[in-house]
Amino acid sequence: MKYNKIFKKVNSELANFENLGNVASYIPELCNVNPSKFGVHLTTIANKHFNFGDADEKFSIQSIAKVLSLTLAYKIEGENLWQRVGVEPSGTPFNSLIQLEHDLGIPRNPLINAGALVICDILITHLTNPKEELITFIRKVSGIPTIDYCSRIADSEKSVGYKNAALINLMKSFGNINNDIDVVLDFYFNLCSIEMTCKELSQTFLFLANYGVCPFSKEIILSRSKSKRINAIMQLCGFYDEAGDFSFKVGLPGKSGVGGGIVAIHPNKYCIAVWSPKLNEKGNSNKGIKFLELFTSETEVSIF
Amino acid sequence: MKYNKIFKKVNSELANFENLGNVASYIPELCNVNPSKFGVHLTTIANKHFNFGDADEKFSIQSIAKVLSLTLAYKIEGENLWQRVGVEPSGTPFNSLIQLEHDLGIPRNPLINAGALVICDILITHLTNPKEELITFIRKVSGIPTIDYCSRIADSEKSVGYKNAALINLMKSFGNINNDIDVVLDFYFNLCSIEMTCKELSQTFLFLANYGVCPFSKEIILSRSKSKRINAIMQLCGFYDEAGDFSFKVGLPGKSGVGGGIVAIHPNKYCIAVWSPKLNEKGNSNKGIKFLELFTSETEVSIF
Amino acid sequence: MKYNKIFKKVNSELANFENLGNVASYIPELCNVNPSKFGVHLTTIANKHFNFGDADEKFSIQSIAKVLSLTLAYKIEGENLWQRVGVEPSGTPFNSLIQLEHDLGIPRNPLINAGALVICDILITHLTNPKEELITFIRKVSGIPTIDYCSRIADSEKSVGYKNAALINLMKSFGNINNDIDVVLDFYFNLCSIEMTCKELSQTFLFLANYGVCPFSKEIILSRSKSKRINAIMQLCGFYDEAGDFSFKVGLPGKSGVGGGIVAIHPNKYCIAVWSPKLNEKGNSNKGIKFLELFTSETEVSIF
Amino acid sequence: MKYNKIFKKVNSELANFENLGNVASYIPELCNVNPSKFGVHLTTIANKHFNFGDADEKFSIQSIAKVLSLTLAYKIEGENLWQRVGVEPSGTPFNSLIQLEHDLGIPRNPLINAGALVICDILITHLTNPKEELITFIRKVSGIPTIDYCSRIADSEKSVGYKNAALINLMKSFGNINNDIDVVLDFYFNLCSIEMTCKELSQTFLFLANYGVCPFSKEIILSRSKSKRINAIMQLCGFYDEAGDFSFKVGLPGKSGVGGGIVAIHPNKYCIAVWSPKLNEKGNSNKGIKFLELFTSETEVSIF
Repeated sequence: MKYNKIFKKVNSELANFENLGNVASYIPELCNVNPSKFGVHLTTIANKHFNFGDADEKFSIQSIAKVLSLTLAYKIEGENLWQRVGVEPSGTPFNSLIQLEHDLGIPRNPLINAGALVICDILITHLTNPKEELITFIRKVSGIPTIDYCSRIADSEKSVGYKNAALINLMKSFGNINNDIDVVLDFYFNLCSIEMTCKELSQTFLFLANYGVCPFSKEIILSRSKSKRINAIMQLCGFYDEAGDFSFKVGLPGKSGVGGGIVAIHPNKYCIAVWSPKLNEKGNSNKGIKFLELFTSETEVSIF
Repeated sequence: MKYNKIFKKVNSELANFENLGNVASYIPELCNVNPSKFGVHLTTIANKHFNFGDADEKFSIQSIAKVLSLTLAYKIEGENLWQRVGVEPSGTPFNSLIQLEHDLGIPRNPLINAGALVICDILITHLTNPKEELITFIRKVSGIPTIDYCSRIADSEKSVGYKNAALINLMKSFGNINNDIDVVLDFYFNLCSIEMTCKELSQTFLFLANYGVCPFSKEIILSRSKSKRINAIMQLCGFYDEAGDFSFKVGLPGKSGVGGGIVAIHPNKYCIAVWSPKLNEKGNSNKGIKFLELFTSETEVSIF
Repeated sequence: MKYNKIFKKVNSELANFENLGNVASYIPELCNVNPSKFGVHLTTIANKHFNFGDADEKFSIQSIAKVLSLTLAYKIEGENLWQRVGVEPSGTPFNSLIQLEHDLGIPRNPLINAGALVICDILITHLTNPKEELITFIRKVSGIPTIDYCSRIADSEKSVGYKNAALINLMKSFGNINNDIDVVLDFYFNLCSIEMTCKELSQTFLFLANYGVCPFSKEIILSRSKSKRINAIMQLCGFYDEAGDFSFKVGLPGKSGVGGGIVAIHPNKYCIAVWSPKLNEKGNSNKGIKFLELFTSETEVSIF
Repeated sequence: MKYNKIFKKVNSELANFENLGNVASYIPELCNVNPSKFGVHLTTIANKHFNFGDADEKFSIQSIAKVLSLTLAYKIEGENLWQRVGVEPSGTPFNSLIQLEHDLGIPRNPLINAGALVICDILITHLTNPKEELITFIRKVSGIPTIDYCSRIADSEKSVGYKNAALINLMKSFGNINNDIDVVLDFYFNLCSIEMTCKELSQTFLFLANYGVCPFSKEIILSRSKSKRINAIMQLCGFYDEAGDFSFKVGLPGKSGVGGGIVAIHPNKYCIAVWSPKLNEKGNSNKGIKFLELFTSETEVSIF
């Protein structure tokens, strides 16, 4: 098959790639991962699967989960959502308070920490049991009933989550958080603790390659228009202040997490998930980005 | 034809659109334009043409021209170009000095003023007669030998160009400008003064919808990879700090100018140019963006 | 007496002063104060007293108290203090997070909110019963055993203290807060809740006009050198981003609070306290500053 | 005499001071100075003189001259001056464009580069032969007819003056520069090129220690009130973002220059000038500040 061949070729090109990054160190629990892990899984909208490496090993998807909470909140709130969070790239490191203060508590987009906290706040307002209902939603989207939070990771994040506490307090001072701060933070840290394998990740996000429809169950997760808009947001905001570089080199909408995972969408074609824990200085998977760059160069197909 | 029908439908939807923006006022000469002008021209890669309104009237394409100077510089310099200018969205208004100072004189991307000044500096280093050679290149790309600078506009911009002079002096203090400041500014103001009709604009940029190849002459303007990368840059940086919103609503790579023009690319399909002089508070054509939003909603096709 | 005469003259000059400011509104309890209150009390180092107006009415001294917590912390820690907080003016509004993030969690000076929070953290580390020991210290410095916190004000501040919570969480993320955040915030809100009359205020701060020695008890509160240094800090940092204007117009070191109080020191001469609740747009007492400007113009004596 | 004795004592304390700074390198001509030079001169308002070291050697006073151009402009314009420049400390490095852009082209104070450029612009508007009239004024203030510009230094600064060109263009874009940019820059670079010895410097600034009156000629240079206000501005803004530290350690209003000179004023007592070319990382004379710190500690007298 085509993709298997390309995987092989890219891997041989990567043989001499010096992976200089470091595993995320700010969350104690994330340090324990084996830095040499490397997995890739591609699922086509026709439900064909291609993979290699550690594609069936669970890892912490971290910020990638922010796309899923956004999906649920967007489904519930519709376009009103954008009164409380923007759709512009941040242009600064992912946890910066500067822009948030300048913009009077309105985060630039829903994929930076501040924006994801607002999305959590919105979900808490709408849902009776936010944690349960979110994970139920994700299980439905993915078709995988075993996907779950990792309380060990969530607790670890909470123990050092002062910067997120600063962000949410600042937004609360501007009136952009409606629920109790501790409740929102707890939901947020759980969201970031979700674990998946590369395979699970590529299945979960496949609806975004299929105009909002889950290709397995045929269920409409999001309208065609909303689904495209989430891809647009990922394209511009999915990689913090490296979004331009990812778009330039890879040419697909995607989202990264500090656990070393990346998911990328080729609309109407496939969803690909990669995992390599060492991060570059911008906080994105070093080898993961390189793999995707070589992969889309080889396929000669990107959205551009 | 399909596009004509959609144009008609979108126009009827726009009948009650209250166009609240203002014509660009900072350049004296730009004020004189009739604010109610409105033209659209779409050219497919199969050389089919669709248009309506003032599609054959010349206007000042302003910053849209920055994509053309970038194309020529990228062709000449290759990937070395990115040592002197980034590919990240700016996240702040288009003429901000703040980020430039923070980034030690390296502009965030080649489509903001600072970045376009660096591109001009690079072209001056490489070309014997920069102004002549650039316009010759643009005439070749478009296949239209009458495209030209407007010295009246260039002079008008020069007379109030203090912010651009601040930008280039700041970059020179960081060592990122090699040529004489006045020479670079003169070239830059001429670049921004180029005039085209909507039809000419959509023809000129068609190579970016055709993977770098001019569909008329079959000449390779840029390699496939470089052509896609310019689209990626437009997608993330083409609308100053409204790039996210344009991407979200329209879903195509594009570039705007303060003359009220916008060009947008649908890879492998078409290039569309719209012109409506009233600008929104972000400096982009108010009605032009609305038109494109409705247009891509109707076609139900975007890159996402 | 000279000062009485000057008070009379300045008051007649102020007869037509249009006091346009607003009473502090961000803390619910502070809104209830009568905006037309106006009191002045001057105490010389020879223990002469001059006053008029509402000089014997209690008000919330708010940020003025930060000088007293600083005095105690400086006495305890000595010059080591300056490893955790700077002595430079902030140049930006008093609650800005921007500079704090830029300076990696080290506040610019001990009189802005962030700096005062660090001082509270330091006192908590050193003292067994911080609240009791601080108020005991202030009573000793002032010679007034009835000075106390106002729990109603402290609770009111706490209920809306999200910006301070953002500041302290940000500093904790940089490692510049050692104690539990809630404990430090509680101490801080109590500090700001202290109430005094103008008379009590001018007595309390008189040691700073007397090179560190309490003129009543002859007790050495601080060394001569440390006392001068606190005056220097007040001169440069006592009025947020209006420090230059106060220094320019009044020419004395001083400190303001959002309760409308101001205390100013003329070294080797006197301490003067004024109170007028309406604040200007920089958050300092509008009429209080005007009064002091006219007062030092009339006396023709300032530190310059 | 008292001061001689203190000089001797401080010098012995400085014997082991490791002077780690570097001579200013951004202006080619300034590099040529001997880094081990060290001179001090103190002149009392009773015209007593105390000095040691290289007190009679000329050096480039650089930014110290900004106080003299301010004096002349303040004399001419009066309080209207403050509509075009503020009196607040900058809180950021001396050549920052950030604050200037934020404040819409109004410099924070007249002693940073941007503010001094505005002062130059004001003088050009008022004077027929600005360069001649300014140097004539300075000669009159100092009583020294040989004080002059150094065209070699001025030309050297001009050849690398891109950051100042950025500042002035930015201010012009905001409408805060009325004259031709090149004329203002030429005047500014000449101002900064003035050369004096420590002795000349302490004589020139003595009027600021004497409430605006030249102690030699008895001529009123500035009113008492204006003279104090210039001292207040020096206190808060004389040392860029080290103003707080200088005030904290030395306790006197003063002004530094990148030539390694510092002048400090003790109102009603003396003016002291020191010179040592090596600068600390904030751009102020390293040994000069240390000397003044020890000097005021020994005298036990400061304005606080």
